[in-house]
Amino acid sequence: MSGSILTLKEIEDLATAALVGAGASQGSAAAVARSTVKAERDGIRSHGLMYVPIYAEHVVCGKVNGLAEPVVEHSHPGAVRVDAQSGFAHPAIDAGWSEFTGAARENGVAALTIYNSYNCGVLGHHAERLAEEGLLGLCFTHAPASIAPVGGKKAVVGTNPFAVGVPDGEGGAAILIDQSASVIAKSEIMLRARQNEPIEPHWALDAEGRPTTDAALALKGSMAPSGGYKGFGIGLTVEILAACLAGAVLSKDASPFSGTAGGPPSTGQCFIAFDPAAFSGALFYDRISALTDAISTQENARVPGSRRIQNRIRIENEGVSVDKDLLDRINAFNK
Amino acid sequence: MSGSILTLKEIEDLATAALVGAGASQGSAAAVARSTVKAERDGIRSHGLMYVPIYAEHVVCGKVNGLAEPVVEHSHPGAVRVDAQSGFAHPAIDAGWSEFTGAARENGVAALTIYNSYNCGVLGHHAERLAEEGLLGLCFTHAPASIAPVGGKKAVVGTNPFAVGVPDGEGGAAILIDQSASVIAKSEIMLRARQNEPIEPHWALDAEGRPTTDAALALKGSMAPSGGYKGFGIGLTVEILAACLAGAVLSKDASPFSGTAGGPPSTGQCFIAFDPAAFSGALFYDRISALTDAISTQENARVPGSRRIQNRIRIENEGVSVDKDLLDRINAFNK
Repeated sequence: MSGSILTLKEIEDLATAALVGAGASQGSAAAVARSTVKAERDGIRSHGLMYVPIYAEHVVCGKVNGLAEPVVEHSHPGAVRVDAQSGFAHPAIDAGWSEFTGAARENGVAALTIYNSYNCGVLGHHAERLAEEGLLGLCFTHAPASIAPVGGKKAVVGTNPFAVGVPDGEGGAAILIDQSASVIAKSEIMLRARQNEPIEPHWALDAEGRPTTDAALALKGSMAPSGGYKGFGIGLTVEILAACLAGAVLSKDASPFSGTAGGPPSTGQCFIAFDPAAFSGALFYDRISALTDAISTQENARVPGSRRIQNRIRIENEGVSVDKDLLDRINAFNK
Repeated sequence: MSGSILTLKEIEDLATAALVGAGASQGSAAAVARSTVKAERDGIRSHGLMYVPIYAEHVVCGKVNGLAEPVVEHSHPGAVRVDAQSGFAHPAIDAGWSEFTGAARENGVAALTIYNSYNCGVLGHHAERLAEEGLLGLCFTHAPASIAPVGGKKAVVGTNPFAVGVPDGEGGAAILIDQSASVIAKSEIMLRARQNEPIEPHWALDAEGRPTTDAALALKGSMAPSGGYKGFGIGLTVEILAACLAGAVLSKDASPFSGTAGGPPSTGQCFIAFDPAAFSGALFYDRISALTDAISTQENARVPGSRRIQNRIRIENEGVSVDKDLLDRINAFNK
């Protein structure tokens, strides 16, 4: 397949131009483009340029209001809420960010919730941003339902990831956890279905709640939770915070994050930030350092987040290979 | 085996008397006894009377200071810290409780961390207590290391559970999640080892990091994390909050929760409470209700926490059967 090698700067410009071309404001487009760059930079291609035509299409069809002006509410010292007004998640998060991080420093802990929101890209990047500002971040986002409760047939929660960003005290993240509630990403099952290939027997269930190796049947059923009922418990925890506490629509009622049907998904996010200075202070960094050492000194074990950093160093140098078909689809919005 | 049927009141008196007999203050003993009653009431026998002789023994040998006076510090509006002073966890949690819940109502969110602490019993009961007070509770506690990072051999984190208590708006919990990071409880593997029975192949690893069905080898190795690296990610998240942020000793450096060796474990807890009124307000309860309905209306699926409630109704009526050997071991401390 023919294609091009793009620098991260070129990717940012390409994404911004396509989103503005689709009808998004410069500010919204720039916020989403920064997220796209971070995904490509870290080798998380599923959330990189591949998503830009979907985002742009959603602006065109009205599933996302590209001109939305997020509304910030700060009724209690530690609670910052943002109504994303059916726009992109990223500008809504940015709109509440400085009040949120300021509140965490002042109170020791604060929470930011977003509703009438949308897919927020790679969740870990929001947790990492908190870590880069010296805060311990715990982030939650939900998604259209794809996981059924154990014993049940009907999906109730999404693959609902959580992320933890741990500051290293020097402007970076010492640990970055970012994991979903399902055994495998849904995109992998969609890929297998397109290629007519079977899936592993523990990945998904059919519409009757039975394990299946047929990718097409799995897409009509539900995703298996990682670790059985414990994975469902994680998905449910995320649902409670990112949907219920945020005041967003439940995963089971949210429209899909792909395709043009169903209007705005109206999903939500919940981010919590702790200032280590209000708790264990300097001891926090000693403990984190001893903890990461105990992992990284074991052969074949790795500290969560370390692979992304390795990708980052490589990709910042080498650039990103983008195939012509994807470039054409993105450029079609850049009118 | 001969034994007696005890009422919950008798269990509370029995546990209090044994702990006071061992040398604990009346206040500390009462706090631990209340936790013992709740465990037996909910059918969680592993954390009920069975633990009382261990607790009492720990007071006698000095692994727990039964006369400790916890010290509360409230340096930031949303951050309450308690130094348990190597006493029981329960009186330390009680000591910070009203400042913690008051801070959550005032700020929208608050965190309580405990250090120089100990085993806090059934974690879910602390989350449920928050729910009963109308707060959404997220609770974390860690334990001596038993889970190795995926790919490694050496245990770094404990079975490190987390719990979520969701208020129903009427003084109870609509959902109660309480789950550990391992596939199975370590107590089950200890039981199999005593009975010379094999364990399931995905439960644990030997000292070389290889899956084993030999319970004795498993006890020399590590517990398998639920869902592989995702389970380790959960254990690590709990470690970051309950050990590092709280300023407790790391799981890898903590002395065991059973036996008399090693001095105080000096572990920690981290509890987070949100006031729904500061976030989605009345909508929160609508969402929670729709969410639990979507689970409970599916045949064979259940809302986390519902089994405990069923046990509770039964056991409050029927009482608890306690075998003579355990009663004798407890009464031996009641001098």
